[in-house]
Amino acid sequence: MKKIVILGSTGSIGTNTLDIVTKFSAQFQVVGLTAGTNGDKLEEQLRQFKPAVVALSDELAAVKLRARCGKFPVEILSGVDGVAQVAQLPEADLVISAIVGGAGLVPTLAAIRAGKNVALANKEPMVMAGPLMQEEARKRGVRIFPVDSEHSAIFQSLEGHRREDVRRLILTASGGPLWDLSKEQMQDVKSEQALKHPNWKMGAKITIDSATLMNKGLEVVEARWLFDIPSRQIDVLIHRESIVHSLVEYRDGSVIAQLGLPDMRTPISYALQYPERMPLELPSLDLADIGKLTFQRPDHERFPCLSFGYEALRIGGTMPATMNAANEVAVAAYLQEGIRFSDIAEVIQTTMETHTARDVRTLEDALEADRWAREKAGSLVHALAR
Amino acid sequence: MKKIVILGSTGSIGTNTLDIVTKFSAQFQVVGLTAGTNGDKLEEQLRQFKPAVVALSDELAAVKLRARCGKFPVEILSGVDGVAQVAQLPEADLVISAIVGGAGLVPTLAAIRAGKNVALANKEPMVMAGPLMQEEARKRGVRIFPVDSEHSAIFQSLEGHRREDVRRLILTASGGPLWDLSKEQMQDVKSEQALKHPNWKMGAKITIDSATLMNKGLEVVEARWLFDIPSRQIDVLIHRESIVHSLVEYRDGSVIAQLGLPDMRTPISYALQYPERMPLELPSLDLADIGKLTFQRPDHERFPCLSFGYEALRIGGTMPATMNAANEVAVAAYLQEGIRFSDIAEVIQTTMETHTARDVRTLEDALEADRWAREKAGSLVHALAR
Repeated sequence: MKKIVILGSTGSIGTNTLDIVTKFSAQFQVVGLTAGTNGDKLEEQLRQFKPAVVALSDELAAVKLRARCGKFPVEILSGVDGVAQVAQLPEADLVISAIVGGAGLVPTLAAIRAGKNVALANKEPMVMAGPLMQEEARKRGVRIFPVDSEHSAIFQSLEGHRREDVRRLILTASGGPLWDLSKEQMQDVKSEQALKHPNWKMGAKITIDSATLMNKGLEVVEARWLFDIPSRQIDVLIHRESIVHSLVEYRDGSVIAQLGLPDMRTPISYALQYPERMPLELPSLDLADIGKLTFQRPDHERFPCLSFGYEALRIGGTMPATMNAANEVAVAAYLQEGIRFSDIAEVIQTTMETHTARDVRTLEDALEADRWAREKAGSLVHALAR
Repeated sequence: MKKIVILGSTGSIGTNTLDIVTKFSAQFQVVGLTAGTNGDKLEEQLRQFKPAVVALSDELAAVKLRARCGKFPVEILSGVDGVAQVAQLPEADLVISAIVGGAGLVPTLAAIRAGKNVALANKEPMVMAGPLMQEEARKRGVRIFPVDSEHSAIFQSLEGHRREDVRRLILTASGGPLWDLSKEQMQDVKSEQALKHPNWKMGAKITIDSATLMNKGLEVVEARWLFDIPSRQIDVLIHRESIVHSLVEYRDGSVIAQLGLPDMRTPISYALQYPERMPLELPSLDLADIGKLTFQRPDHERFPCLSFGYEALRIGGTMPATMNAANEVAVAAYLQEGIRFSDIAEVIQTTMETHTARDVRTLEDALEADRWAREKAGSLVHALAR
């Protein structure tokens, strides 16, 4: 029985993971769960899955949860430290890292340092501190299994083939809900429209990232560190149907791809039980029924955020962390209707241009860049606020 | 340096293999070559690659070649035995089996029995005597690497994943040159038209097999034995562009596929140097440039030959060998304008219906069925002859 911890259990990936655990209850034991502010949902989960420890990063939410669960045999921790403590539970075999945004870095790194294998669903730790994460994982013999559908596809397409034969990684991108709009139309897009992803049902932050293609920019950075490959060997391909999740080209001209209906349970379950595949009983992919798959080149002009990922990698050091933090601030402001859609890219670009990159030698280096960028982006958002 | 033998060196696969050998001459030494009747081309090849032994299955062609190459340091064998002898050369590490049709069975089995790893480009040995081939390979620890683009794709899509997780193999089919014709239009199609394959440049026999879809019927049988999987787990998918060479569906809903521009050098080179991939410097597959990939269900009514493969497997024993032999006779008659296009399927079907299947316990069982079916199909062709 595999003992698992889920960081971010109340989000989209967290609940999908618990769906799998419910279906295959003989194979998994949930030993720890963490969430941000959603104490109600965490309460439901802890009553169902009975982990020994949970944590809420929001202190007030934790106080309320403790009051409600006084008699339940669970330890309820709180704050960043509480979450990090759950990430290091001695009995855990695998930590599913599914906290949205930069907040995932500290507990994910803590899990790695505690020697835990990690199923990585949030890109931000790799974006903010990729070299550090990989160095720590190497030192401790920890494996990092990607959960993001694109990175899982790359991971699956690399299995059984020699790394030295890889010519290119090709990340597919749906193009998101705004792909068919002109640059002018995109400027003032309302969040209702930007939140309508054509293929995937995901959280708000990541859906806006799909609309700006910043999601793909972040994925390029993640892929660079996850697979230890230079960014010039990473391409992006627009594929509206989200059936081909990503591809790997080899030096003999052969391309291996992973396909499937868009369902996060497939990559989650692969990361949970690698190298075994779980009998999920999902519908088969019927390509004759789908009829056709289309492919287009990305458009860096309408979607400048895609280029930011490459640019951040080119400059290196703290620049990707800066890009990520500025994006988080800008997306939050956009969702609260503080800024326009086109302002998101503006805020990120200006923050990156203002930043002087330094090496990321320690966690603190990444967190410091994150803080600096949040402050900078915050003031830019403030100036743009309507 | 890998020492190789090519059975069928003057055909399409043979010459493509020698192209690769020329480009990577430091990695390969050609120790034996065989051909059928084309002594001129074999002479060119033996002068260039300097194998110790060659063979022509045609005795007369061999006599002529011996006369022309008297002073050249090469042993020239002839007949079925001569070809089989080259297949067993003690110094060979890998035998490329690329003889068109059922004639490949005897030397390929001889190579396996001599403990040689085999790169298998012709489907007929597996169709005629799949269980026997696999049993002999198992006994001698011989590996069989598929060269056919579809089977190479399946092979590549299985690498690194667990066999017990496989749900389906999906063989793609271009649909061939006649896919858009009605049943009526197809009846009298002339060979010039049937020989125009939309994507692949291949020999005449296999191109007609692509037009009838008998090729896919044969491939279903080959896949059944090559990958040791029941035929109900093998599907066929029409994919006109021949970019996705085949796919494997796993039980978690994930599908792994191998893609590439249609170029036999990719699967040949993979079989030659597995698990290493050779830097062939072929153009990259540019999916944005291609734009779209289409998929359709196969049409068993217009293309009855596809069903024959499944039917032959259902009955088992000598039935697949019978199907194959009848097809060879019918295709040859069609190419010589003896029968109509629609007669090909008729001849195969009637031959199969007349046949009483027996187990294939020995090579002789398969050869006997082959002889019987050739005779039967021959008489049917004779009756249909215009």
